[in-house]
Amino acid sequence: MSSKKVALVVIRRLPRYYRYLSELLLNGVDRISSKDLSERMGVTASQIRQDLNCFGGFGQQGYGYNVEYLYREIGKLLGLENGRTMIIIGAGNLGHAIAGYSNFERRGFRLIGIFDSNKGLVGDKVKGVGIMHSDDLESFIAVNKPDIAVLAIPKVSAQDMLKRLTATGIKGIWNFSMSELKVPDGMAIETVHLSDSLMTLSCKMMQTEME
Amino acid sequence: MSSKKVALVVIRRLPRYYRYLSELLLNGVDRISSKDLSERMGVTASQIRQDLNCFGGFGQQGYGYNVEYLYREIGKLLGLENGRTMIIIGAGNLGHAIAGYSNFERRGFRLIGIFDSNKGLVGDKVKGVGIMHSDDLESFIAVNKPDIAVLAIPKVSAQDMLKRLTATGIKGIWNFSMSELKVPDGMAIETVHLSDSLMTLSCKMMQTEME
Repeated sequence: MSSKKVALVVIRRLPRYYRYLSELLLNGVDRISSKDLSERMGVTASQIRQDLNCFGGFGQQGYGYNVEYLYREIGKLLGLENGRTMIIIGAGNLGHAIAGYSNFERRGFRLIGIFDSNKGLVGDKVKGVGIMHSDDLESFIAVNKPDIAVLAIPKVSAQDMLKRLTATGIKGIWNFSMSELKVPDGMAIETVHLSDSLMTLSCKMMQTEME
Repeated sequence: MSSKKVALVVIRRLPRYYRYLSELLLNGVDRISSKDLSERMGVTASQIRQDLNCFGGFGQQGYGYNVEYLYREIGKLLGLENGRTMIIIGAGNLGHAIAGYSNFERRGFRLIGIFDSNKGLVGDKVKGVGIMHSDDLESFIAVNKPDIAVLAIPKVSAQDMLKRLTATGIKGIWNFSMSELKVPDGMAIETVHLSDSLMTLSCKMMQTEME
């Protein structure tokens, strides 16, 4: 249990490593020391060595890390190697904003469907992907087997929708519904609490004001 | 330096405490032990005692924590006591989605203006707040002195907009532009990387698949 906990903490840092490494690659940097990486990321070099050692220690003394290799290996750990498909449930402003967020595609996430309970939206396209009616959700999932469902629906509808999704066997839920949902074994969920981020900003401002 | 670092780690946990405590209050719970709070939040009781001790140790042996008191004290640390005003820059889908996110108001953040460079949107209202033209940004800030600017604009425009905002003296930037921005001393910034959250989900799915 304790080792699993540590893993989750490290998991939460992996996307940031991945993001920084992808920028290094784009800038043509092919190797980097833990010291340089730590300065860019604002964490200690020993933290970086410790984290990356968890995944097989790809660094070499005096050489540093091979950026592309490390990027690929972390990509594998993040499950990005073969790409992931996703559907968005809820075609309101938030659903549209998520669909338009081009960074996901760069990370290997492909949007294959959008669903809404409003019949008036059915047939509209967002970024080339059609909006379907929520009634067709189960049949779509059965045929297309998306990996991830994005919940861009209000809190009141979230629990019922999760129940429907659980029955389809979908494996991942990205939850923007602002409700704390419990998923059964075999399913993974990640809940986005935007107001946590806003409160963190406010707290940073307090500290700045005290300086 | 080391003590400041610890503080930032704890700061990042404060919003979650605040969120859980607000739910307890809504449910009429007036006191809670660190053990119960830890079970609800999925962190260890000793972590909770340690975190809360940082802010003056509000717990009493054998009694636990007074929920309302703790909620208010953490609210103060988060700078929520007197409320914060904010403006959104960018009235696209993301700007609309943020404006519609009702949880912010519950946390004491009040939206007072939305700006866009598209003249066609000027005068439209989102949640009762009017969209103004970006040209009027500086004069609006001078008069209304918002605390926070939300950057809901594309990466390419973010650096220039930050320069303009810095000149106005605004104190907080909530950055959705997907670019890594540096702010001068006296300003605070919090950047939302939605794809980090999606990658974390993917990594959790990998772990679930291996079980």
